[in-house]
Amino acid sequence: MISQPPVNIKEILKQVVSTKPLVYHMTNMVAMTEQAHLTLAISASPVMSLSSEEAAEMVNIANAILINIGTPSKEANEAMLSAAHAAKRLGKPAILDPVGYGATKLRINLVERLLETGAFSIVKGNGGEISLLAGERAEVRGVDSVGSPPAAIAAKTVAQKYSCIAAATGPEDYVSDGERVYVLKSGHEWLTRISGSGCWVGTLMAACLSVTEPLPAAMSALSLMGAASQIAAEQSDGPGTFRIRMFDVMYQITQNPDAFSFPQWELLEV
Amino acid sequence: MISQPPVNIKEILKQVVSTKPLVYHMTNMVAMTEQAHLTLAISASPVMSLSSEEAAEMVNIANAILINIGTPSKEANEAMLSAAHAAKRLGKPAILDPVGYGATKLRINLVERLLETGAFSIVKGNGGEISLLAGERAEVRGVDSVGSPPAAIAAKTVAQKYSCIAAATGPEDYVSDGERVYVLKSGHEWLTRISGSGCWVGTLMAACLSVTEPLPAAMSALSLMGAASQIAAEQSDGPGTFRIRMFDVMYQITQNPDAFSFPQWELLEV
Amino acid sequence: MISQPPVNIKEILKQVVSTKPLVYHMTNMVAMTEQAHLTLAISASPVMSLSSEEAAEMVNIANAILINIGTPSKEANEAMLSAAHAAKRLGKPAILDPVGYGATKLRINLVERLLETGAFSIVKGNGGEISLLAGERAEVRGVDSVGSPPAAIAAKTVAQKYSCIAAATGPEDYVSDGERVYVLKSGHEWLTRISGSGCWVGTLMAACLSVTEPLPAAMSALSLMGAASQIAAEQSDGPGTFRIRMFDVMYQITQNPDAFSFPQWELLEV
Repeated sequence: MISQPPVNIKEILKQVVSTKPLVYHMTNMVAMTEQAHLTLAISASPVMSLSSEEAAEMVNIANAILINIGTPSKEANEAMLSAAHAAKRLGKPAILDPVGYGATKLRINLVERLLETGAFSIVKGNGGEISLLAGERAEVRGVDSVGSPPAAIAAKTVAQKYSCIAAATGPEDYVSDGERVYVLKSGHEWLTRISGSGCWVGTLMAACLSVTEPLPAAMSALSLMGAASQIAAEQSDGPGTFRIRMFDVMYQITQNPDAFSFPQWELLEV
Repeated sequence: MISQPPVNIKEILKQVVSTKPLVYHMTNMVAMTEQAHLTLAISASPVMSLSSEEAAEMVNIANAILINIGTPSKEANEAMLSAAHAAKRLGKPAILDPVGYGATKLRINLVERLLETGAFSIVKGNGGEISLLAGERAEVRGVDSVGSPPAAIAAKTVAQKYSCIAAATGPEDYVSDGERVYVLKSGHEWLTRISGSGCWVGTLMAACLSVTEPLPAAMSALSLMGAASQIAAEQSDGPGTFRIRMFDVMYQITQNPDAFSFPQWELLEV
Repeated sequence: MISQPPVNIKEILKQVVSTKPLVYHMTNMVAMTEQAHLTLAISASPVMSLSSEEAAEMVNIANAILINIGTPSKEANEAMLSAAHAAKRLGKPAILDPVGYGATKLRINLVERLLETGAFSIVKGNGGEISLLAGERAEVRGVDSVGSPPAAIAAKTVAQKYSCIAAATGPEDYVSDGERVYVLKSGHEWLTRISGSGCWVGTLMAACLSVTEPLPAAMSALSLMGAASQIAAEQSDGPGTFRIRMFDVMYQITQNPDAFSFPQWELLEV
């Protein structure tokens, strides 16, 4: 069953470019640099900090907050909790990317404490992470596990459990508001041969979330990622050149969204 | 009014290549990797560390020190203060890049304490940061604010206030020794669509500062950045390929400065 | 004297691709991102963490552990020691890269404490680091010192001293098991004009170490690095494009090792 997606991606991208939202990233040390490059490539503005002493202030000046726990540390964890509380208090839109959820007790506890703040309108992860968050059995292997088909059900469960939009990424991406589940078949195999492509989606979602609602923000970000990866792959010889081309293509698309077509979401029977 | 710049950039770059200075970077986690790549591309040698336990020793073996507060943390802040004191004590040339100055109390306090050491012969920042340091009203928006025309006055004020060379970067770069202000019209729009281009300037200034005085070091670094960005942009399709080409071009220029021409500084009436 | 190397690199690379080992990196903030990209380019799986609170758990799920002390910090140092003890206890293969050994007291003490755990079956470093570890006089200059010819003797000494395979990298790479010393003449000058190429070798060694013994793992990794760098350099205009091409070529080689030839190791009279 194909459905018109509840999202006008071109309008959303134009609003990002015209408003240049400040996206406060509390993110892992692996993807941080490229998330900053990506934010600027789409004409938004990044600020990255894991300092516990300025987290609440940064939330205050940011248009959207992205918390990604990929490389936890004592100070960063404290900072993330401080930022989540501030986001809730100030009503700032916030996204959680529970990277490696389930791999260690530390990550499980940290994610639980973050979710208890009630700050997050989008929770995104790979299929394995979202499945574990849903409470199902799922294989998590490091931080690069791919989603299994049950990820669609898991997305719906997580959306209900935490009253948020949940996105489970993988060869197929699933987004759910707790009632409906949408599926996107897009992307490119090389997204799995570079590090941080899932983290980049968080950046795109956060930028979109500063100008629209959580559901269209999550869906637009994944459509953009899918479209860009297919174009970039055609211009590349492997995962190295592909990764760099992604920034060119992200820039080109957001400068002129009308010149591009985007992969379509479908409503899924779950 | 056009003036012969008080700087022989080609000689300075040749001295960097022949002396291979060790540049100790205490810098943010976003730009750190690319600052290391850049240091090596211009034939200097980088060492990056934010450890408070080795900061003073690192200053001792370094030829120049760059302190960039872009991603503060408790240990990094302590390390930066320790390094600044050591640089002053040992007479090592040091540069301060007060990234995000004004955005949070933490950054304001950290920069004040760093400046109190009297260690810095160059203070560089974007126009917003330098304007705030000068004590003027200025809009700072995250860490990517662009300089307004008052940035020239601000550079002069900061140079006087802290007895240093001050550089305010932006669409136009301003460098002042507290008496004169020089302006450079160069660069490329894509420098604002990648993260860390301002941080890279700090790396270039530090490498030059190990072989020459602060004023020509600051001016040479900005001329090099301007020249390289214009060449790299011509070879690129967007901010991704542009960013990578920058390292090729930086290498090519520094291997053979005589084959290149550099944008000229002008004396400004302020 | 030329000898058939005791290593079947093509088989080893095929095993890496088919088993997709999880390589736990405790590595410096400069090379971390590109080590993650490299791990995925060769079809292995990376997890990066410097958290002291999850180090032992991460060792438990990892197939190989790489400890690289390039950017020490209080928490990271504690985490590394915790991981080394866990690796010893659990019998997990582990590699030590003592980046900047000798530059500061902190690094000397940290490396000593790490080596006391007896966890490491491979110790790799540049010629200067390995020479200092061997107890000889050697010039170390920051973290990019190049090996002098005595590095071959140093590798043999370190292998004996710590009952491990020792690798000293540089214009010539030396690998020793404490009895024999092998030499590889390969690579490209641009490996010294980018940051982290030595760290990347650690990643490759760790991936190989999850499927074979330490000696062939160390030799395969260096052969792969040499082969890839020569191919990548031919496709590049400088250290920037070279660095990115490396990921393409690493992917291409590991997807189809039979289509490539690798530089040969020779037995050295030491």
